Amino acid sequence: MTFEQVNARVTKGLLHQWQVRNSTATIPHTIGQLRSAGNVDNLRRLLVADAPPYRGRYPFLDTDLYKTLEGLAYEIGAGTAPDGAPEFFDEVVEQIERVQAEDGYLNSYFQDPACAGKPWEDLAWGHELYNLGHLIQAAVAARRRMGDGRLLAVAVKFADLVVARFGPGGEEVTCGHPEVEMALVELFRETGDRAYLVQAGLFVDRRGQGKLKHRIFPPEYFQDQLPFRELPSVTGHAVRMAYLAAGAADIYRETGDRSLFEALDRLWDDMTATKLHLTGGLGSRHSDEAIGDRYELPPERAYAETCAAIATMQWAWRMFQATGGAKYLDVFERVLFNAYAVGLSADGKAFFYDNPLQRRPDHEQRSGAETGGEALRRSWFGCACCPPNIVRWTAQLGDHIAAELDGALHITTYAGARIETGPIALAMETEYPWDGDVRVVVERASGEPYAVRLRIPGWARSVTASVNGRPVEEAEDGWLTVERVWAAGDELRLRLPMPVRAHGSHPYLDATRGTVSVARGPLVYCVEQQDCPVPVDDLVLSAAQVAGAAAGRQDGLPGAVVLQVTAGTAPPPSAELYPELPAEQPEPGETVPATFVPYFLWGNRRPAAMRVWVRNK
Amino acid sequence: MTFEQVNARVTKGLLHQWQVRNSTATIPHTIGQLRSAGNVDNLRRLLVADAPPYRGRYPFLDTDLYKTLEGLAYEIGAGTAPDGAPEFFDEVVEQIERVQAEDGYLNSYFQDPACAGKPWEDLAWGHELYNLGHLIQAAVAARRRMGDGRLLAVAVKFADLVVARFGPGGEEVTCGHPEVEMALVELFRETGDRAYLVQAGLFVDRRGQGKLKHRIFPPEYFQDQLPFRELPSVTGHAVRMAYLAAGAADIYRETGDRSLFEALDRLWDDMTATKLHLTGGLGSRHSDEAIGDRYELPPERAYAETCAAIATMQWAWRMFQATGGAKYLDVFERVLFNAYAVGLSADGKAFFYDNPLQRRPDHEQRSGAETGGEALRRSWFGCACCPPNIVRWTAQLGDHIAAELDGALHITTYAGARIETGPIALAMETEYPWDGDVRVVVERASGEPYAVRLRIPGWARSVTASVNGRPVEEAEDGWLTVERVWAAGDELRLRLPMPVRAHGSHPYLDATRGTVSVARGPLVYCVEQQDCPVPVDDLVLSAAQVAGAAAGRQDGLPGAVVLQVTAGTAPPPSAELYPELPAEQPEPGETVPATFVPYFLWGNRRPAAMRVWVRNK
Repeated sequence: MTFEQVNARVTKGLLHQWQVRNSTATIPHTIGQLRSAGNVDNLRRLLVADAPPYRGRYPFLDTDLYKTLEGLAYEIGAGTAPDGAPEFFDEVVEQIERVQAEDGYLNSYFQDPACAGKPWEDLAWGHELYNLGHLIQAAVAARRRMGDGRLLAVAVKFADLVVARFGPGGEEVTCGHPEVEMALVELFRETGDRAYLVQAGLFVDRRGQGKLKHRIFPPEYFQDQLPFRELPSVTGHAVRMAYLAAGAADIYRETGDRSLFEALDRLWDDMTATKLHLTGGLGSRHSDEAIGDRYELPPERAYAETCAAIATMQWAWRMFQATGGAKYLDVFERVLFNAYAVGLSADGKAFFYDNPLQRRPDHEQRSGAETGGEALRRSWFGCACCPPNIVRWTAQLGDHIAAELDGALHITTYAGARIETGPIALAMETEYPWDGDVRVVVERASGEPYAVRLRIPGWARSVTASVNGRPVEEAEDGWLTVERVWAAGDELRLRLPMPVRAHGSHPYLDATRGTVSVARGPLVYCVEQQDCPVPVDDLVLSAAQVAGAAAGRQDGLPGAVVLQVTAGTAPPPSAELYPELPAEQPEPGETVPATFVPYFLWGNRRPAAMRVWVRNK
Repeated sequence: MTFEQVNARVTKGLLHQWQVRNSTATIPHTIGQLRSAGNVDNLRRLLVADAPPYRGRYPFLDTDLYKTLEGLAYEIGAGTAPDGAPEFFDEVVEQIERVQAEDGYLNSYFQDPACAGKPWEDLAWGHELYNLGHLIQAAVAARRRMGDGRLLAVAVKFADLVVARFGPGGEEVTCGHPEVEMALVELFRETGDRAYLVQAGLFVDRRGQGKLKHRIFPPEYFQDQLPFRELPSVTGHAVRMAYLAAGAADIYRETGDRSLFEALDRLWDDMTATKLHLTGGLGSRHSDEAIGDRYELPPERAYAETCAAIATMQWAWRMFQATGGAKYLDVFERVLFNAYAVGLSADGKAFFYDNPLQRRPDHEQRSGAETGGEALRRSWFGCACCPPNIVRWTAQLGDHIAAELDGALHITTYAGARIETGPIALAMETEYPWDGDVRVVVERASGEPYAVRLRIPGWARSVTASVNGRPVEEAEDGWLTVERVWAAGDELRLRLPMPVRAHGSHPYLDATRGTVSVARGPLVYCVEQQDCPVPVDDLVLSAAQVAGAAAGRQDGLPGAVVLQVTAGTAPPPSAELYPELPAEQPEPGETVPATFVPYFLWGNRRPAAMRVWVRNK
């Protein structure tokens, strides 16, 4: 399947607000944190005498810079970078150029003469190839968006060192943290040098061969217990797993290796059927930041790291690129508007790490000393992988709302936007995800027949569409296709009704048995204690009550659609933890009004209990 | 309330089988493991030139020896030690005597000249006072049971160093791992030196004052976020919490400090109402081995460490000693026959660490690389705190079946046993916990009125009792009291009917909503896949079906009562993880026979899925 990146720019609505916030709040905040946390100094100190020691506990802190540079490349290229950002970009790039070793090696942790470790001595934990991966991605973005090739020169030099050392005939090792695979394929695409593609394939193929020297963590953590093609299910550290799968999908796209696709297809279907939180979050264990077993999806102890959300979207996007399958984009959208978006505060300057689907009242007093246990988002972390990942991903959202596959324009996510391919230019108007009406106006057309395909989300029912007022045919396999000779001024309209929906869960999913969740369009909703007159744990909600909810607005959550629900209440429970059955059936309590807010907006007021899954009796 | 230890010996039945297994299998296995894992060598090497390095990652590995010595002291004293055990005892005691430093300090990790750390430099993680605690407990047991005072001399010397350094006017610190508090109170009881009692009180009172220098773990882990008396709920690392509370209860018993009791009473009631697994297990998070929030009790991810079970029983026993309250013994019994017993394999040579209440089918293939994720019990651990804890606790079960409080004999746990106090000697006959009939025959009596009190478990209904065939009055507050002038040959009979019971759970306990559990007498039952003709996740059980279960025996589980249940089955579920509601109600499936086995016996056959909590629709 041929794929072409289209020229798309988000211009209005929620995604645009996110991009503006990224530029005006998250990027300046991130630059400030990278300076104060020591990431910038860790490079600079290698260039001066009597430097202070390396700051931070991890050998991958350069990647927080690389991810930020990648985001800045998009912003600078689009002319939307905030004041000071281009100067920061130049400052860090110049340091990187100077710090890189003669042979191409680059890592401010291991290059420290005082470092206890040596380069390449601990591939399992050293993260050196993970570092290279993020460097390459920043370099490619800078080259493509800014026409700035300085980082690319650095990245190629480092990549060539890696190919020479770990390439065909070299040391048969791989990195404990996948990420470089996607990057190497992109470097192949950028440079045309097939050695990078071959190297990416080797790094995937060497897993599960006993080549990684594990210490504290089990082989599953590193996706190293089995060869990739034999994995029965996504497993181990969630971010590692999804980056690895995304890289493998890239390799498949370039090589057509069916055995790789068959594994990806199987792993994807198993993941979506058994291992994703309702929000699209991936990860169920704080311990080892792991995915967990099938149907092990605890709302309160979800460990659905924001980086795993980004990695899952990257994997989804590549599966879509490879197949045109709409099902991948359903997950992409679910993650984008829920598991990903919740990671960032409304003001763009604070971050969740684990993105749970429930907070108990006990957490209102929680100090936040345990990462993931905090009552509200935090401004930074000792392991701050997620914030700069948000920076780069939000900056490139425009690249993920449309694509040209096999010569047809596919609109994958609805947003106020301008989209341009060779044969056509469009303006898209919508308040999505708050509203399901979409208006696409053709601004320029080639005069040749051309297909425009609109994605029909899996949640949508009773969808209607028209061209210049005339109804168009029904959707198939998640796509509504309109092929015609377009003319400037043509209007394509799509109507995705957004009733409030109740969702249950699979009977094997023990953690949410006997509860319902509330959704509207692509958004998962939740109830926070401040919007509920009884303890949220005493709320009892039926599917009928959910269907009767009214959508509206609420002060304090500008722009957002909230849901007014009339819910039941449970009588005060007896104190007994494990009552003998049959217990007396308590009289049902009264009904109360409660407001459900979009899940991604929770935790922006005072600390409070929250539930996505509400008892249904 | 006055308390006297009685002379009690388990002679027959399940507890006796456990003690025999301890002596014949677990102790030899443990001694072998302590030798091969390096615990013995870690002491010996300090006495020879050019010794090999310290083995193991932790500074508390001496305690595995101390706990074993404590268990051996009971066995040697009772004449039931296995071949070679007395020699092992002498060998290790002699090494301990020689290794102890001139000033009394003793810890084979920090005494190593090559050790990166220094004595007393890291009270939060060094475990040095935790080490002292286990040394004292072994020493007191050896003195009392064997009349051997060698270890006590070592312990007193170390304890005196601690009092001099950390006592009144000394350094105001405490240990990151509570345990020494119980031990110091016992050392006070043994020696009469009040300084040890004062020291124990100081170690409790200094918590929550910012005196511990934490690194990786949060203050909650160490019960150091608040002063003990202000803790709202049991919190942090489960074993630390329960040892601390047990120590505080000992201090209360000696000082009568009401503020301490009020905190203990509140913490106990909150724990039993919100934080104990059905099995009596304590701990809900693999991450930080922590207790978790109220009602956070996931069966599959329980982290109900065997050491926490022992610590909970120690706390329960001390609360009973302090108050005579039967409710504490209900928990003691629940833990003993479930959360504690499950930790050990049927052959006495393999151990669970986390004691989960559910295993998913995914685990059948699990390698066991992650402690707590294994499919079956393991023969030893890098952090092997639990196995020798089982050794010492099983060896002293006789001390926990009866006690004399305020001049009355309290029989707290039913077992084939001989029990003797000043005024009376009894033989107890019963097949408890398999059967609820208990026969107590007086063998010797003083001729003066004397009260014998029989504990009536909280689960028991329609209890009857008689003396020499004549019914006796009803129980009150969990005790059936018979006060009379006893004569040799008097027969006291108690009948605790054991119907099969279904239990539900509190509506805030999300993880077990919509499920039922099966119990009989003090035993929790579970279903393993090999005893169920459909996947255990497809079993659907009503309270009525549980009540109709038949108790019987099964090949392969000698002696045990198993339950034959006719259960429903769920139709094959649709593949959808989060179906939109209202979903079509599937037709109920057929009924099938399934066998439920005592929870503590699960995992002794091939790896298989297991559930304690079974879907009820």
